[in-house]
Amino acid sequence: MGTQSLLDEITDVGRDSARGGYSRHVFAEAETELREWFAERAEGAGLEVETDRNGNLWAWWGEPDSGDAVVTGSHVDSVPGGGAFDGPLGVASALSAVGTLRERGFRPGKPLGVVVFAEEEGGRFGVPCLGSRLLTGAIDATAALRLSDTDGVTFAEASAKAGLDPGRVGADPARLGRIGRFVELHVEQGRGLVDVAEPVAVGSSVIAHGRWRFSFSGQGNHAGATLLCDRADPMLPAAHAVTAARRIAEKFPMARATVGRLVPTPGGTNVIASTVDLWLDARMPEGDVRALVAEIEAASSAAAAEEGCSLVVSEESLSGEVLFDPVLRDELSRLLGGVPALPTGAGHDAAVLADVLPSAMLYVRNPTGISHAPEEFAEPADVERGSAALADVLEYLCR
Amino acid sequence: MGTQSLLDEITDVGRDSARGGYSRHVFAEAETELREWFAERAEGAGLEVETDRNGNLWAWWGEPDSGDAVVTGSHVDSVPGGGAFDGPLGVASALSAVGTLRERGFRPGKPLGVVVFAEEEGGRFGVPCLGSRLLTGAIDATAALRLSDTDGVTFAEASAKAGLDPGRVGADPARLGRIGRFVELHVEQGRGLVDVAEPVAVGSSVIAHGRWRFSFSGQGNHAGATLLCDRADPMLPAAHAVTAARRIAEKFPMARATVGRLVPTPGGTNVIASTVDLWLDARMPEGDVRALVAEIEAASSAAAAEEGCSLVVSEESLSGEVLFDPVLRDELSRLLGGVPALPTGAGHDAAVLADVLPSAMLYVRNPTGISHAPEEFAEPADVERGSAALADVLEYLCR
Repeated sequence: MGTQSLLDEITDVGRDSARGGYSRHVFAEAETELREWFAERAEGAGLEVETDRNGNLWAWWGEPDSGDAVVTGSHVDSVPGGGAFDGPLGVASALSAVGTLRERGFRPGKPLGVVVFAEEEGGRFGVPCLGSRLLTGAIDATAALRLSDTDGVTFAEASAKAGLDPGRVGADPARLGRIGRFVELHVEQGRGLVDVAEPVAVGSSVIAHGRWRFSFSGQGNHAGATLLCDRADPMLPAAHAVTAARRIAEKFPMARATVGRLVPTPGGTNVIASTVDLWLDARMPEGDVRALVAEIEAASSAAAAEEGCSLVVSEESLSGEVLFDPVLRDELSRLLGGVPALPTGAGHDAAVLADVLPSAMLYVRNPTGISHAPEEFAEPADVERGSAALADVLEYLCR
Repeated sequence: MGTQSLLDEITDVGRDSARGGYSRHVFAEAETELREWFAERAEGAGLEVETDRNGNLWAWWGEPDSGDAVVTGSHVDSVPGGGAFDGPLGVASALSAVGTLRERGFRPGKPLGVVVFAEEEGGRFGVPCLGSRLLTGAIDATAALRLSDTDGVTFAEASAKAGLDPGRVGADPARLGRIGRFVELHVEQGRGLVDVAEPVAVGSSVIAHGRWRFSFSGQGNHAGATLLCDRADPMLPAAHAVTAARRIAEKFPMARATVGRLVPTPGGTNVIASTVDLWLDARMPEGDVRALVAEIEAASSAAAAEEGCSLVVSEESLSGEVLFDPVLRDELSRLLGGVPALPTGAGHDAAVLADVLPSAMLYVRNPTGISHAPEEFAEPADVERGSAALADVLEYLCR
């Protein structure tokens, strides 16, 4: 089945009528439906499906324990109100590529796996690439189990409900040891391929990125009865933090700083907030991203003090710059006829795996350049070009 | 039963473990439980209970249709994470005062009513004093029925579910015509009584106040892959609006401007928001509160344009300054031994009714001065002083 046909099968799963686009959060209804869809399609393609101790799904062509496996895949969870391609394109392309290889009569010389990683976006529990980080041990299991969603449900509770054993969540070196190389296909999240008029690229690097929670505390009170001079309103320093993040990030070359989530508590219209939490997403191609965050924190703390409020900052995740394996990158670029190599500001499971084994990425052109939003897109012709390229790559790596 | 004992009966209803304090929103579970509690206690006191076409609850001592009734009461809904006294103190004091009058052997010369108004805080449907505004016709029924909560449930749907007929929601001149005078007892939402060391005051005025929704639109996108120079991030002008509201309000004498509710959509940590909605609560004792809002809007529009975003502002409610009936105010102050008369920045159902009939307020000392927050308080001795004062007032007015 073609990749576009596979994507068409899931086009109604997890639509978010309030936000637009899709909200498919790990272990929630829509993502669970997509997991079942994946398992069914993978089994239909003759693959053996299993779920690992961290909630990642694996589908195998060949005996994985024979080692040096080639694995491809991505994720099916989304950001809230995300696009249709970020994640599912890599999964559908992998399934489609397996079909293409079977049609070609190809017999892999190595085990070939397709993986669906859990919670790549961190849309539910806050830490991106949670499934791959748990697999490699990049995040401590105890810390991961304590993460909670906006309803207060912990990852331990949600994973137990999804059928996992929370006591077994954590690093899985035996499983990791099976894998020789990993390749993730993904929709491009920028205009790099549009600018060079190419449908497919390989990945060169992922810039350093992390998430920090800024918690401002003040004094909740009545919005009408409290004079301005009597206030300790945490919304004020939170607003200063938003503008400071932009102003300070502009001083660092190519840095990005974003506040996309901000939660005042209690959140009533006629109530001065008692606390405001905001999340700073900061990324930087060179230098120390923590230095950028430290400057934003200093400005925010000063604004908090001026309003009689306090600020606590906690680092929820941090990933250093990742350079994808240069030998693999150049091999794949040549194999695909000299396609360009592109850096990205977006994190991926392939970047987590790149710390422990040779990993690569393929990007498919996105005419809008927009991602994490309903406008995210790939032309059907480019979708098929991408999965054809992935089939070529898998055939090459599994020969 | 004493007022404090009545309050103690409902101390566990609608606690909000996430925000602290209470969340009791109109027609939701906790507020419904409080309505049932009120009806039971009122019937136990020998009052006749009825629900009007707008969801306000009435309990009568005597035949209301005989006219020139004296009505007291307040509300049982709360802001999200509100205190225990704002609303319930007036309702419990009214029930307790009825008991006191019965103990005194008093026979009212006029019908005496106790009312529980619906949605005084606007905590669910956004418009404060919705029940009293509907009663007087200060809000159009069609507009009110279309209001929706954060889950998209309209007031029409919620009122039908609560057993009302949405087709009959709206102005109720016959019911209003029964009422001669209205008195609301309320916890003070400031430190006026603390400053003069008095337990009880009468109300003199409510300053002009309203709510405006600021809707900023930009372009949702990926927080890592989108360069700062390519962004149209509505969180930036929203933050500017928060700081502009404070800066501009400081120029107007005694003005208050508050942003307590701010909602980015989609609200993902690694997502540039596509829209940000914030609600501006603005109040001013003199001059035109719309002039204050217009200045804040101008500054916010300029910030939106600079970021490539747009802004739409809509007025959700506006109430002019209310002066409580000066004759009634002075009569009650004298009756209570010369208690002070206090202005307030907080809106009340009594201020809505003051537009159509002589209305008054009694305030009970709040040692924290804090309201709309868990710290809101009244000492038990002051609580009983308040309801004794209310009993005296009702006896005087119903003689």
